[in-house]
Amino acid sequence: MFQRYRSDLAEALRAGLAVEPPTMSQTESAGPVDVYSMLRYGMGWADVQGRLVEATTGKALRPTLCLFACEATGGDPGQAMPAAVALEYIHNFSLIHDDIQDRDETRHHRPTIWAVWGVPRAIVVGNVLRTVADVSLSELTRLGMSPGDIVELTGTLTGAYLEMIEGQFLDLSYESRGDISLDEYLDMIARKTGALIRCSLELGAYVGSRDRATVEAFRECGRALGLVFQVKDDVLGMWGDPGSTGKPVGADVRRKKNSFPVVHAMANATGPEATRLLEVYAKPEPDDDDVDAVLDVMERVGTRRFAEELAERHSKVALDALAPVELESGARLQIEGLAHFLLVRDH
Amino acid sequence: MFQRYRSDLAEALRAGLAVEPPTMSQTESAGPVDVYSMLRYGMGWADVQGRLVEATTGKALRPTLCLFACEATGGDPGQAMPAAVALEYIHNFSLIHDDIQDRDETRHHRPTIWAVWGVPRAIVVGNVLRTVADVSLSELTRLGMSPGDIVELTGTLTGAYLEMIEGQFLDLSYESRGDISLDEYLDMIARKTGALIRCSLELGAYVGSRDRATVEAFRECGRALGLVFQVKDDVLGMWGDPGSTGKPVGADVRRKKNSFPVVHAMANATGPEATRLLEVYAKPEPDDDDVDAVLDVMERVGTRRFAEELAERHSKVALDALAPVELESGARLQIEGLAHFLLVRDH
Repeated sequence: MFQRYRSDLAEALRAGLAVEPPTMSQTESAGPVDVYSMLRYGMGWADVQGRLVEATTGKALRPTLCLFACEATGGDPGQAMPAAVALEYIHNFSLIHDDIQDRDETRHHRPTIWAVWGVPRAIVVGNVLRTVADVSLSELTRLGMSPGDIVELTGTLTGAYLEMIEGQFLDLSYESRGDISLDEYLDMIARKTGALIRCSLELGAYVGSRDRATVEAFRECGRALGLVFQVKDDVLGMWGDPGSTGKPVGADVRRKKNSFPVVHAMANATGPEATRLLEVYAKPEPDDDDVDAVLDVMERVGTRRFAEELAERHSKVALDALAPVELESGARLQIEGLAHFLLVRDH
Repeated sequence: MFQRYRSDLAEALRAGLAVEPPTMSQTESAGPVDVYSMLRYGMGWADVQGRLVEATTGKALRPTLCLFACEATGGDPGQAMPAAVALEYIHNFSLIHDDIQDRDETRHHRPTIWAVWGVPRAIVVGNVLRTVADVSLSELTRLGMSPGDIVELTGTLTGAYLEMIEGQFLDLSYESRGDISLDEYLDMIARKTGALIRCSLELGAYVGSRDRATVEAFRECGRALGLVFQVKDDVLGMWGDPGSTGKPVGADVRRKKNSFPVVHAMANATGPEATRLLEVYAKPEPDDDDVDAVLDVMERVGTRRFAEELAERHSKVALDALAPVELESGARLQIEGLAHFLLVRDH
């Protein structure tokens, strides 16, 4: 599925950011790096001097889901391309602002935008990308989509985007707290990560089918896949192979990140184990012993097994949601393959 | 003009942010201040605890221009209300992010959002407001506007918004530079401040007339008014009466802000005066003597007179642009009054 759309998608994403800087003077006097060069850097296509380099891009999960859903429901994936591009830009916008909020200095082994150009510029660069996403939706008019459909798609995307930022806000509110319930955590990530993944399938299915029941089925599927994706992400953040993830074992303990395993362990540990957890999370910087202690508690309360079973259950929910929908030939195997991939991926 | 729309506008603005926080748990455990309470604080309607207070709001220039243009061209201003609300939210969003970028700790005599709740939350709070602006446009559907018109309005707003952020980026790029030309500066503020003011008249005229020539005339008028507004703002930042502006004389020198008078003085001073200016702007914190020296140079090169004449000329350009357009009775007097107000306002 990822291979199928990769080159068309890469081309469309690059076209959307192949913008001349707003004034000549900017290139002349602010150095070679204008806002669009910074965005190309953020997307992994350019180095800090703005020179194009061999791309180090992510999986492009969201646009791939969008194009897949369009084709699976009988549409031309080219018609969904502007929405796919908008989804990937919005995802990358959220990474740019997330990195500022979390003070993360590297991503994909490269310095983050704020680490290179400072917080003020990084905020603006993110805002530009967020807006270029809206601009890319205007391509739909050129592709002959009706204004009514465009208003519908725009509204769906805006709603999902608002949910995503509300989730980001909740995540920040939960930061220094040790009493979050699993339900609160799952609700937060359903917003922060799930909303955009769900929206990707929704938008694709809408373009492909214009059929309310079909869109609703893909929406349910996307909701479940979003949970699978994030729970697996959290499992990798704790037990991922450092060779694959590029992060040390227990990485999320060291940075005291709110994640599913931590919330589960906090909610289930009792007595001295609970005390030890609170002790670790009260430290400014947990050390190796702390990481071992946390992993030990998680082992005893069955955190990893619980998380993996939850992900598996929701993977099945995702596929069941599509059972009543008629799909193009081969599409069902593909979405099964994707659901499996989200469960077993190692980075 | 401001009085005319004040109460309807205030009601619509409040309705758009009268949102329950996304989860119950947030109100229970993150304290009383959820993201929407922070936004109500930012809009001047609530205190830091989220309690409603007597409003300390701004002029609401942009939505007022939008509603005026709609009514002046024969429309029902109620039809333009969702666009007016979106414009005011976007303006306030930009203030929230601007305050972070400029590290401004107070606005309208109240602590800024980042100063109260920190940078990470303030970034997210701004992003939520930006998105609520998009959500408010969906009200247009309920008011019976056609999808084609909604797509048109949305596209215009997105374009102006992108220009505004590009202007913000240019402003940051210009910060530590002493060699900006007046043209570069005017181009930057036409984007950063002018685009949204211009767009306010454009959107209102579109809703009121659906006529391309009329919209174009209001667009030209708005472009000129935006320049008048910003040049006057910059004059007030330098020579404003501290009793009215709430800022000391020469405030913009002390914070070394790029502004029209500074750019003009830099471009026109020669010899020892030029050296003195560069010296002041090389200091981390200019003192009273520095402020006096800069004001002195500006006096000699005629900065203030130049700025005021430029503003007057563009005030005339703004009114001339509307000369060919047929306006509702009384509207021409009102826009003349507004153009005059923008020239003579003292804060």
